[in-house]
Amino acid sequence: MPEPGSELSGRYRLSYKVLFPNQNVTAQVREGDTVLAAEIAAGLMPDAPCGGMGVCGKCLAEILTETGERKSVLACQTKVTRDMTVYTASDGGHRILTEGAGGLPELRPAVRALSLNVERASLSDPTSHWTRLKAAVRSAGGGDIRPDPVMADALGKKLDALGYAPQAVVCGEELLDIRKGGRLLAAAVDIGTTTVVLYLADGQTGTVLSTVSALNPQTEFGADVISRANHAMHNGPDDLSRAIRTAVNGLLADALERAGAEKKDVYSVFIAGNTCMHHLFLGIDPSSLVLSPYVPSVADPLVLDAAAYGLDANPRAKLFMLPCIAGFVGADTSAMMLACGFDRREELTLAIDIGTNGELVIGDKDRAVACSTAAGPAFEGARITFGMRGAAGAIDHASIDNGALTFSVIGGGKPRGICGSGLLDLTASLLRAGVIDETGRLADEDELPRQSRPLAGRLRTVDGMRCFVIADGEQSGTGQCVYLSQKDVREVQLAKGAMAAGISLMLEHLGRRAEDIKKVLIAGAFGSYMSPESACAVGLIPGVLLDRIQAVGNAAGTGALWCALNYECFERAAAMAGRTEFIELASSPDFQDRFVDELMFPEEL
Amino acid sequence: MPEPGSELSGRYRLSYKVLFPNQNVTAQVREGDTVLAAEIAAGLMPDAPCGGMGVCGKCLAEILTETGERKSVLACQTKVTRDMTVYTASDGGHRILTEGAGGLPELRPAVRALSLNVERASLSDPTSHWTRLKAAVRSAGGGDIRPDPVMADALGKKLDALGYAPQAVVCGEELLDIRKGGRLLAAAVDIGTTTVVLYLADGQTGTVLSTVSALNPQTEFGADVISRANHAMHNGPDDLSRAIRTAVNGLLADALERAGAEKKDVYSVFIAGNTCMHHLFLGIDPSSLVLSPYVPSVADPLVLDAAAYGLDANPRAKLFMLPCIAGFVGADTSAMMLACGFDRREELTLAIDIGTNGELVIGDKDRAVACSTAAGPAFEGARITFGMRGAAGAIDHASIDNGALTFSVIGGGKPRGICGSGLLDLTASLLRAGVIDETGRLADEDELPRQSRPLAGRLRTVDGMRCFVIADGEQSGTGQCVYLSQKDVREVQLAKGAMAAGISLMLEHLGRRAEDIKKVLIAGAFGSYMSPESACAVGLIPGVLLDRIQAVGNAAGTGALWCALNYECFERAAAMAGRTEFIELASSPDFQDRFVDELMFPEEL
Repeated sequence: MPEPGSELSGRYRLSYKVLFPNQNVTAQVREGDTVLAAEIAAGLMPDAPCGGMGVCGKCLAEILTETGERKSVLACQTKVTRDMTVYTASDGGHRILTEGAGGLPELRPAVRALSLNVERASLSDPTSHWTRLKAAVRSAGGGDIRPDPVMADALGKKLDALGYAPQAVVCGEELLDIRKGGRLLAAAVDIGTTTVVLYLADGQTGTVLSTVSALNPQTEFGADVISRANHAMHNGPDDLSRAIRTAVNGLLADALERAGAEKKDVYSVFIAGNTCMHHLFLGIDPSSLVLSPYVPSVADPLVLDAAAYGLDANPRAKLFMLPCIAGFVGADTSAMMLACGFDRREELTLAIDIGTNGELVIGDKDRAVACSTAAGPAFEGARITFGMRGAAGAIDHASIDNGALTFSVIGGGKPRGICGSGLLDLTASLLRAGVIDETGRLADEDELPRQSRPLAGRLRTVDGMRCFVIADGEQSGTGQCVYLSQKDVREVQLAKGAMAAGISLMLEHLGRRAEDIKKVLIAGAFGSYMSPESACAVGLIPGVLLDRIQAVGNAAGTGALWCALNYECFERAAAMAGRTEFIELASSPDFQDRFVDELMFPEEL
Repeated sequence: MPEPGSELSGRYRLSYKVLFPNQNVTAQVREGDTVLAAEIAAGLMPDAPCGGMGVCGKCLAEILTETGERKSVLACQTKVTRDMTVYTASDGGHRILTEGAGGLPELRPAVRALSLNVERASLSDPTSHWTRLKAAVRSAGGGDIRPDPVMADALGKKLDALGYAPQAVVCGEELLDIRKGGRLLAAAVDIGTTTVVLYLADGQTGTVLSTVSALNPQTEFGADVISRANHAMHNGPDDLSRAIRTAVNGLLADALERAGAEKKDVYSVFIAGNTCMHHLFLGIDPSSLVLSPYVPSVADPLVLDAAAYGLDANPRAKLFMLPCIAGFVGADTSAMMLACGFDRREELTLAIDIGTNGELVIGDKDRAVACSTAAGPAFEGARITFGMRGAAGAIDHASIDNGALTFSVIGGGKPRGICGSGLLDLTASLLRAGVIDETGRLADEDELPRQSRPLAGRLRTVDGMRCFVIADGEQSGTGQCVYLSQKDVREVQLAKGAMAAGISLMLEHLGRRAEDIKKVLIAGAFGSYMSPESACAVGLIPGVLLDRIQAVGNAAGTGALWCALNYECFERAAAMAGRTEFIELASSPDFQDRFVDELMFPEEL
């Protein structure tokens, strides 16, 4: 936090709240961030096809002026300079997934509140206050608390004031507080490269009191893990650490406000995130993660003092860092494995989390193997000509029947681009229709099979590149032709090839075949919208697994939340991370071969 | 440490070194302290019968002026305002006892240095740096180190720089440092109410590199435990905590300088001291110690981060606080019990530490009981008309043969007062000579037994009080008559009565008799100078134990040093403190009775 008189206008910026009444959510952003950034922070997944250049005009929103009138602005060009109210055009925007598959675990949190009856000291029993407190904790069902001078200071006076019937807040053998009573809150955080989600849970009832999310402010230093690690290599990790700690504190404050609760009652914070986010939160130099051989400094589960990492909770709160597995398989994967119950799975299971990177896990209760591929970005819209995230205007589903293309657009209306699920559907449909062959080549008009001849008019050459036109300028929401180019198909091939090669190598490592996999769990937003048929048709997932695919939502966040509610979950995540084998695809001699093999589309579904 | 520009002239004062070439010792004192205080801090046990009022002239010393000349000054009236060299008159002054009985324990310190060979990471073994470091520590004979983000930060770079063959400094499952190599130092401190002793030990050779002592600067806030606790009750413990921490840091810096060593190599500090000193060092409010029922806030052994308590050692150094037993039986007693090997004693043993308070322990390897009495002050010179500490001019031994009094004076020369051992001898001699009867009454001249009639002239009445004159004005070193008054004899009776009643109650508690005690160990300076015969003659120690008395020196400091050299010693001290029963004399219904009984002197030796 900035000290009075410190360089407030420089490194530190004021933060403001932006209210979105249509969606009934708020976001906390920093002074100078755009309204568009606030929409992303609020989980509204807004669309800005021009990349925030202020030219496409698609991010139109209305803000409430200080005189109480509504005024139209471009969200990407409007800076937040005060607390604001914003009415966005995309009233159907997709929220960040905050609820995972499955119910909540039994309430058995790491931090517990115990009602004590402490014996008073007397001349005939003048043992130390600590000894008598320790006996009372044991009587109340706690363990042996470790002596602690901070808690012991003036302990007699404290016990007097509490009538010798205090509530003890304990975490294992640590005494965190003695007090009259109060709420006992736990926070669970999933630090993504792009967004941060925080759940505030009640450790006495097991309910989730509030869920908040924000843009990861580290984007200021780079959009992806590599560029942030580079920033840290040149400037040290402090900027990035401070940014993410500040963001988590902002979310925590927001979640507390929504729950009508106080930070003094937050005694535990559980954090999941990829290895780079994990290291940066802890203030650890992430250089080793992005330089071969891509090694984490520390991957073990950690139980730390939250205050030492700047967390604005109870001053004695504990910080639990979920374990990482490798440099590019982080604590988010451990959390996902927990939420997917890998340690209890009788049948071989494949779990996939497609975010900025794609992490894969195959295993069961006896054995698991993980790897990371660079498969993700294409399905988040990167490198695809009309690629965009799953927001209003995105083609999210498509099919071709008897030579007729039909598609659906998020929020209705005209298409402005193609999101990940739409990209899969389009590719799969074009394959089935023979518009693309197994090698990925877009057919010439005269090569089209009979039933696909009505599509001939959609095959064009734009800027020297073969394209399949989805909507021409009149049909599209941008006034421009929306198409899938030959290069876009190649990007899909590269992404699915990496993913499929990873799956193939992992299966070989385990001595198993694709058909041995009994369940495929897809985490993240993409998993929820993706068509399993299309995923199999393009070969992203082996076709034999089609009927076994299931979306599981934000599994990483869910896993962190489970840990906050049940300490055994944290231990299970630790055990799973410890036993999960890791394949570094880059070092695998077979990977390039396998990858090239897998670039081809499957012959038939 | 004072920040630049802080209130340097107020709370913080500069500290200076005072060199005493005659004794080859230095003391570190704060600006404005007197040269007399420096002498005390240096362990020279100077004498100031007038209590530093500047009237007796007995603390004459020579200081080296800034022009290099010697100049006579009154030590009690001369303030230290720069680094000084002082030649004291008392060239035979007694040093603080810093060597205890017995040799040093086997070297097996809590903090160890291990030479590691760490496997380099590779694409085929990309496990975290921490995991590989942990394996190397285990291979080198260490335990499983606990993951620690501070040590993990940039661990790969550190290992590179150290050629993957670093030295690890470990304490249990904590990694304190990885480095190229270097010394491994441990400090042991005995914080007394009046003086503080620090030993600097080499944790790789087991040798004691230097021993330093200083006046406890808390005397500024009160001479004894009660007045300091009162200060803390009204002003909080911070003044007192800061004072003692600063003093320990000063001693540590001094000890390091003498040993040619650096603070970065000090990885452990072990502290013993009475319960009030223990609490104040830790910043714990000592109020509960001095208010009935005299309860410590915490008595357990503590392993803490030294930096959190302001210790100026390696930033990762550990602080080990020896355990306390009760409000007035502190960690100094635990340390004494260790140095006396109570947990290995086959035969019942009585240990006595007579300082400002007198602590008593009776026990063996199976059972031990402790108590505290207010017996000490009389033997330190307090409340005795001509009482003084054991320094030059003090009558330290005396006897009466055939009506002739003979005595010895510390440093030769004329007597100026009576120290503890002299007080015991005089009382015992007068008892044997029939000058005092069993009730403690000084005889009238005509009541003297025949052989004591030559002493008749020494029985006088001064200021309405019966006295036994030891030296008249011409014979004394002060020009004033030196005597033992009826009131002084009563003080001896009160002191020995409390001690004897304590011993009696403890024996009863154990179901044992005095003759069951096979060894009497007397700790501290008094124990070294006291005549066992006289102690038994006056009834301070039961007469049957005369041949079993042994002096053991600074047993508390010795115990702390042993802990620094051998962690099992710390655990042994903890186990002993935990099993030692405590008798609160004030709450014992029999104590007053027993005390009154024991006020009488024994009938005969």
